[in-house]
Amino acid sequence: MKMGEAGKEVNLGILGLGGRGTGQTMLLASMPDVHIRAVFDPYPDRVENALKKLNDAVSYPVCGAESAQSLIERGDIDAVIIMSDWETHIDLAVRAMKAGKHAAMEVGGACSTEECRDLVQTSKATGKGCMLLENCCYGEVEMTLLNMVRQGVFGELVHCQGGYEHDLRDEIGNGDLKRHYRQHNFLHRCGELYPTHELGPIFKYLNIGHGNRMVSLVSMASKAAGLHAWLEKNRAGTPLVDLHFNEGDIVNTIIKCAGGETILLTHDCTLPRPYSRGGRIQGTKGIWMEDNRSIHLDGITPQRKEDWSHSWESDEKYMEEYRPQLWKDYREYGMRGGHGGMDYLALRAFLEAVQQDTPFPIDVYDTAALMVITALSEQSIANGSMPVAIPDFTDGKWMLKKDEAVGPYRL
Amino acid sequence: MKMGEAGKEVNLGILGLGGRGTGQTMLLASMPDVHIRAVFDPYPDRVENALKKLNDAVSYPVCGAESAQSLIERGDIDAVIIMSDWETHIDLAVRAMKAGKHAAMEVGGACSTEECRDLVQTSKATGKGCMLLENCCYGEVEMTLLNMVRQGVFGELVHCQGGYEHDLRDEIGNGDLKRHYRQHNFLHRCGELYPTHELGPIFKYLNIGHGNRMVSLVSMASKAAGLHAWLEKNRAGTPLVDLHFNEGDIVNTIIKCAGGETILLTHDCTLPRPYSRGGRIQGTKGIWMEDNRSIHLDGITPQRKEDWSHSWESDEKYMEEYRPQLWKDYREYGMRGGHGGMDYLALRAFLEAVQQDTPFPIDVYDTAALMVITALSEQSIANGSMPVAIPDFTDGKWMLKKDEAVGPYRL
Repeated sequence: MKMGEAGKEVNLGILGLGGRGTGQTMLLASMPDVHIRAVFDPYPDRVENALKKLNDAVSYPVCGAESAQSLIERGDIDAVIIMSDWETHIDLAVRAMKAGKHAAMEVGGACSTEECRDLVQTSKATGKGCMLLENCCYGEVEMTLLNMVRQGVFGELVHCQGGYEHDLRDEIGNGDLKRHYRQHNFLHRCGELYPTHELGPIFKYLNIGHGNRMVSLVSMASKAAGLHAWLEKNRAGTPLVDLHFNEGDIVNTIIKCAGGETILLTHDCTLPRPYSRGGRIQGTKGIWMEDNRSIHLDGITPQRKEDWSHSWESDEKYMEEYRPQLWKDYREYGMRGGHGGMDYLALRAFLEAVQQDTPFPIDVYDTAALMVITALSEQSIANGSMPVAIPDFTDGKWMLKKDEAVGPYRL
Repeated sequence: MKMGEAGKEVNLGILGLGGRGTGQTMLLASMPDVHIRAVFDPYPDRVENALKKLNDAVSYPVCGAESAQSLIERGDIDAVIIMSDWETHIDLAVRAMKAGKHAAMEVGGACSTEECRDLVQTSKATGKGCMLLENCCYGEVEMTLLNMVRQGVFGELVHCQGGYEHDLRDEIGNGDLKRHYRQHNFLHRCGELYPTHELGPIFKYLNIGHGNRMVSLVSMASKAAGLHAWLEKNRAGTPLVDLHFNEGDIVNTIIKCAGGETILLTHDCTLPRPYSRGGRIQGTKGIWMEDNRSIHLDGITPQRKEDWSHSWESDEKYMEEYRPQLWKDYREYGMRGGHGGMDYLALRAFLEAVQQDTPFPIDVYDTAALMVITALSEQSIANGSMPVAIPDFTDGKWMLKKDEAVGPYRL
């Protein structure tokens, strides 16, 4: 199917209409082969706002469902898009699959290993799929790097790292208590709350699920000082200043893979800083680093006279040279949607697999393994940074299992 | 004492005449108040080479000692400078202090917690001091950052990181088996073998030993693939290719401090990459990062229109504004010696404390706590990244102990 071409109609139910949910809903509504049948959110004002926007955008009627369950059980939908609070994602996806619907979830981490196992077992039992809408897997930089990794540019991979390094003090420390998932999660939990933006692409670089898997992790949290300092300065005299946040400002997690590779993740959301996903790829032939958008390839990168050690070079020409087909087509078609266009690609990857009844490029095993990192990092921190074994949700199939996704959205 | 002014004569014995030892010896020989009485190295060719160079440089005779112990026991020396293999540093320093000499050690990590305790106890029992010659504590950038930290530029510190990220494949993978400490250490050990270049300055930022201490760590190593790949390409057909190196290419270590701060260390010496000490300082008011030589200060750094998130700014003007007095004086006097001039400052810090009989700015407690990280990281890795408690070599004195160092080299 050519990019932008309408496929078979996909009928959707939408759960979760906060800022992100509404934005993604409107992007879905713009697709000619998508029919949004019903939406739901526990806050009536959000539903009202979304329905108003949808009525302006589409020519068909959209229903406001009475509950999440009544939406899930509708007979006129093929799939449910879940964009609610992090801690409700898996429960809703399980219920959707049990009701015979495919499930797509916005990103977020799991709260227990058991719910991740439940997600996988439900998918196996029902034959319905579940895909984490990890948009960063479809980022242009990330897909270009994946192409470089697969072509052996970095040699044998040894170490990858990434982070969610995003100053969210303003969002978390606002007055609208309990309505934003980040606020109650940061108040109550302490762990790698948001691992998948960086770990999703790394999963693919390291062939996790297909000949490799993550076997253990350790996690350590710093004290939580950033939000309190920010609130004292910016919300003095409000009850927010007295809140105690459990989430440490910096949480570092190191993961060991069966192939011997290590992965370092950094969660850094409550101190002042420019945004970064802190990407790094290291192999026997070279290194790429996001924070200076540079690369060094052994024997290839030109040596600058002024450097006593090896030199960096800009990654720009490599980004051009190794741009993957999907992104060439997408640039020609015209990028749309949020986050540099990658939101659109992640949604299309899900929708076109539903249309063609093919495996999702981020399948239920990937989804469970990505999300479980949050629960395991909480366990490690709770036990003084003890190493924690990472469950094998494939029950050994990862050793020989091929990636069965097909088509242009295959990762 | 003014910089460059000769103080009381200090009589030295030198242990270890490899590349580093010889270089530092010649720097010491250039100082008018230093008298090198004797040198020793187990390899006679190294002694011969060093004596030849010394004879060309100084007007007094220098003796080649028969053994390390005979050098240590000489009646005509005040202090011993130890620049031998990493694993011999502490033993030699202990023997020196027992023989009534102060000890200075080139950097390197410890092999056991017990030898670190022995170092501290020997210093207490003999009244002799021991200083790790951690030159990076005297780096211009590091001292400027220390000044910024102390002036509250970053607010309350939350997280620091650093690394020894240095492609040493050429050095470690050479044919001169067993004569370079790195080669046998990389063959046999697996851990954070070289933590002090980055951890030394961080120690000072975080007031370790004076109101703060490191309480636990976890360490994880990747596989070792870099040297083998390099040897296959560059030393094909030699016995080196069949060597199995224990040291993982990337070793990450996370340390928790009593004050709630975390420290991330990276050891990265056997993959291709430009040199970096990977420094990062994060506090409630800002961040500094070495890899892009940039800073972001909350509400101070100008926002660039093209950035959707906070902006970085170059650290250049801050390096100017917060340059500490020692470096102002040093630039005026004229920088000398290796590693951007900091070798000279570290040696003078030791020598002038000996001359004036004052505490070392990097004292025996600092030295033990910095070096023990290596042994503890090996333990953590050996036990599957288990958290390891970091010994308190001060036996509780760290809570109230003031830094008693004085003069321009105080850190």
